[in-house]
Amino acid sequence: MNTKNVFALARFAPEKMQKVNLFETPNFFCDVYCLEPGQEQKVHAHAEADKVYFVLEGRGVFLVGEEERELAASEIVIAPAGEPHGVRNVSNARLTLLVWMSPNPNFKK
Amino acid sequence: MNTKNVFALARFAPEKMQKVNLFETPNFFCDVYCLEPGQEQKVHAHAEADKVYFVLEGRGVFLVGEEERELAASEIVIAPAGEPHGVRNVSNARLTLLVWMSPNPNFKK
Repeated sequence: MNTKNVFALARFAPEKMQKVNLFETPNFFCDVYCLEPGQEQKVHAHAEADKVYFVLEGRGVFLVGEEERELAASEIVIAPAGEPHGVRNVSNARLTLLVWMSPNPNFKK
Repeated sequence: MNTKNVFALARFAPEKMQKVNLFETPNFFCDVYCLEPGQEQKVHAHAEADKVYFVLEGRGVFLVGEEERELAASEIVIAPAGEPHGVRNVSNARLTLLVWMSPNPNFKK
């Protein structure tokens, strides 16, 4: 039985945002994203995959489409396929996110 | 921009476990499952869809395949496509889960 503790696996680095994979299949991946203050995931888009960000800890400024919004722990946001999206940690504390993407672009069809 | 607060949307009922949808597309759904003490999601399987349960609050006894394990807040588990799975709240407190399934069986291909 494949279980994990998301906070135990969170890993931060001064160079850049860290992505820690929890689970993946061709249908999806689920990662923990770990952003030190000042780090970001630059705005990008996936033509065919939907992404969901869930804030585990901290605060982040999320962009989806042309809109930006600051979200805190317990808030969740969808970046539908094709929509530009990204996240910046402009706070003074660490930002930890649970991230799903489906289908999984790392698997070739 | 489509954002939600998962705890603000949690909804419990004495009759049975409640499922509150947050987001869905043909690629996935994301729900909050809300289990009062004694409530359960009976063991079942999906031939083609993977499910992930993340414990937001409380404790639950999860079954995947032939194995059972109790998980608490911040723990996450995958039920791969085809594997029997279910969850029981055998504690004295409410159990709140974030649940993903991909692809979304509610959308016909």
